[in-house]
Amino acid sequence: MDTDLFTVKSTKKLKVSRFTVIDDELDIQGQDAQYSFIEIKPGICVIIKTRDKYVLLKEYRYPIKQWTYEFAAGIIDDGEQPVDAAKREVEEETGYIADKITELGEFYPSFGATNEVIHLFFAECSEKRREHREYTEFITYELADYEKIEKLITNGEFKHGAGLAAWLKYRLYKEGFS
Amino acid sequence: MDTDLFTVKSTKKLKVSRFTVIDDELDIQGQDAQYSFIEIKPGICVIIKTRDKYVLLKEYRYPIKQWTYEFAAGIIDDGEQPVDAAKREVEEETGYIADKITELGEFYPSFGATNEVIHLFFAECSEKRREHREYTEFITYELADYEKIEKLITNGEFKHGAGLAAWLKYRLYKEGFS
Repeated sequence: MDTDLFTVKSTKKLKVSRFTVIDDELDIQGQDAQYSFIEIKPGICVIIKTRDKYVLLKEYRYPIKQWTYEFAAGIIDDGEQPVDAAKREVEEETGYIADKITELGEFYPSFGATNEVIHLFFAECSEKRREHREYTEFITYELADYEKIEKLITNGEFKHGAGLAAWLKYRLYKEGFS
Repeated sequence: MDTDLFTVKSTKKLKVSRFTVIDDELDIQGQDAQYSFIEIKPGICVIIKTRDKYVLLKEYRYPIKQWTYEFAAGIIDDGEQPVDAAKREVEEETGYIADKITELGEFYPSFGATNEVIHLFFAECSEKRREHREYTEFITYELADYEKIEKLITNGEFKHGAGLAAWLKYRLYKEGFS
């Protein structure tokens, strides 16, 4: 399929800090072109519900120098299944144990610049243990009801890309039962 | 505010291909830490409606080597207002002229790795001119009804991050009137 569109003439992997940039020279139907993108490991984002409340995280995000509302998210370890990464992140970030976990599909946060894919989940939890945190992570969380999440999205305070994708898929999943 | 959390000890700008990586050395409450992220220019994503149909693009995205369903999106030029970038992209990508444009807020696609912000819009269009395309862009589009968009999102075929965020905000905007 790809060869109908272009031929890759050369490819370079450029390491810079924690990122790897792929820099390819292409032949697109007889014309030269260059395409570069960033390799980012696959991740997960999970909406955590316990009784009638949702776990709403607030985290300091250095790239945008802001505290942001978000749902639990993280990187999938090498060889790990997305659903296992979701369960692990639920426990690590909030201390909850997922009793039931539902897959909500996957999406691409920024497919013009990166190859990152995020798998979305909905976790129903009851039992709580304690959190495991890195000292470089600034995270707090609260339990919020459905209406509060909707309000934060509507008024623009909730700006987490994967969280918005997850919430849309969760809404459609819920509507499938009504 | 930031200085309560950390002090930036040094900062480096590393250029690689079309990307700039910011690599900062921090002091977080007495402990050394390093944080790097990618500078990506602000963008827009716009849901285009004409009569009762939505403009559904299909584009080949090189970083993920796939054809993807998506809504119109692009980068904001230096000094350009987000709403003007949205109007420009509507015309460039589809040939439609926006009669009315509604802001749906902004979000961060990947605030753990980049500082990218995307402004979301809903454009109502009638008049059509012709498209302006780059030869390196592989894009087609169709006019799809509301139910088709919802179905593509539900069954996982629509995986465009900014498009999913825009659709959720658009749903909430529509529900505000019902």
